[in-house]
Amino acid sequence: MAPTITAFERSPDRGKGLARDMRVRWAFEEAGQPYDVRLVSFEQMRAPAYRALHPFGQIPTFEEGGLTLFESGSIVLHIAERHPGLLPDDANARARAISWIFAALDTVEPPIVDRSMATIVERDKPWYEARLPMLDDRVRKRLGQLSTRLGDTDWLDGAFSAGDLMMVTVLRRLNGSGLLEEHPNLAAYVARGEARPAFKRAFEAQLVVFTGGPSSV
Amino acid sequence: MAPTITAFERSPDRGKGLARDMRVRWAFEEAGQPYDVRLVSFEQMRAPAYRALHPFGQIPTFEEGGLTLFESGSIVLHIAERHPGLLPDDANARARAISWIFAALDTVEPPIVDRSMATIVERDKPWYEARLPMLDDRVRKRLGQLSTRLGDTDWLDGAFSAGDLMMVTVLRRLNGSGLLEEHPNLAAYVARGEARPAFKRAFEAQLVVFTGGPSSV
Repeated sequence: MAPTITAFERSPDRGKGLARDMRVRWAFEEAGQPYDVRLVSFEQMRAPAYRALHPFGQIPTFEEGGLTLFESGSIVLHIAERHPGLLPDDANARARAISWIFAALDTVEPPIVDRSMATIVERDKPWYEARLPMLDDRVRKRLGQLSTRLGDTDWLDGAFSAGDLMMVTVLRRLNGSGLLEEHPNLAAYVARGEARPAFKRAFEAQLVVFTGGPSSV
Repeated sequence: MAPTITAFERSPDRGKGLARDMRVRWAFEEAGQPYDVRLVSFEQMRAPAYRALHPFGQIPTFEEGGLTLFESGSIVLHIAERHPGLLPDDANARARAISWIFAALDTVEPPIVDRSMATIVERDKPWYEARLPMLDDRVRKRLGQLSTRLGDTDWLDGAFSAGDLMMVTVLRRLNGSGLLEEHPNLAAYVARGEARPAFKRAFEAQLVVFTGGPSSV
């Protein structure tokens, strides 16, 4: 039986693939592994039954046999460790690719999420306009450092890995901000990720949830 | 030769063990593994030589033989995977413990860091007083969910693991805020972590950097 993940019944991003199930869908597609999706409402995510799966009431979760996991980073790593295609064979290169998963989630994503959250929940606050440039600059600092490291290479450390998968999904959250476009090599890096057949399949699968087409994966 | 990590030459927390090298020191101590520390100044962290080790110019880094890693989550996981004492043997329990590493860093830590950063860099801003309750509430939301999950157990999922190590270090960053104390089971959980002999050894080792005692580890 294929593993089951959870995703938003109604994604706040209206099918742009910015929710965190996208990372896991993409990882399954890169690994060539089938998966099932159970859609959950915001009400269901607050219920004790869901909290038993995910203590923080978020998506995605991962269930396979007797194992339940949460946190997109953990689920992507789990898939990457068990199937070829997402981590190098060499032990050192593998550890470095895992460093990039953590860097994407712990160093690059927080200022990006902060900025998006502010544009949603603090837009009407009197301080919004004054704070936004500061939030932009925090994002810019990380993008500048990442751009320097990436240079003119295709991926962060040799061949495409789960580290790139995670970083691309994190950078995609800047969609519409104009910040990514300040670094042409990063914009090209994201486009390179989005051009992968596995990304496209994952993107279509999450889009169908929003457009209401056939819902089987 | 023992691996070498980097840590602040002058830690902004003045020896409270809140910087991210503490996690890695603690992991080494739990695993009973020796390590060396190279102290770096803020100026050194901005230099190209350091950026070659850590693209985002932070501490800690990890170097062993030809391998360089960065991001405290990645380094702790690397140590935990290679030495007994930090991850369960059972494959499913192991994957769940890794979920907790990610939960600590990606779900619990961001609102805690946001709050501490605001108390430092936005204290003089006109909106500081008005925003602080909102930042407190974001932290409270995660603490409430974590407290519910922990219940009256000692650790998050069975025996002490790298997931607990990471969560305890994340919660310790609330030091002085009064927020942790709103959940006696979480305060006790952190105290339980701090009472471990390995924690104490790691704490002393980082304290010595600040107090200027013997600097060998």
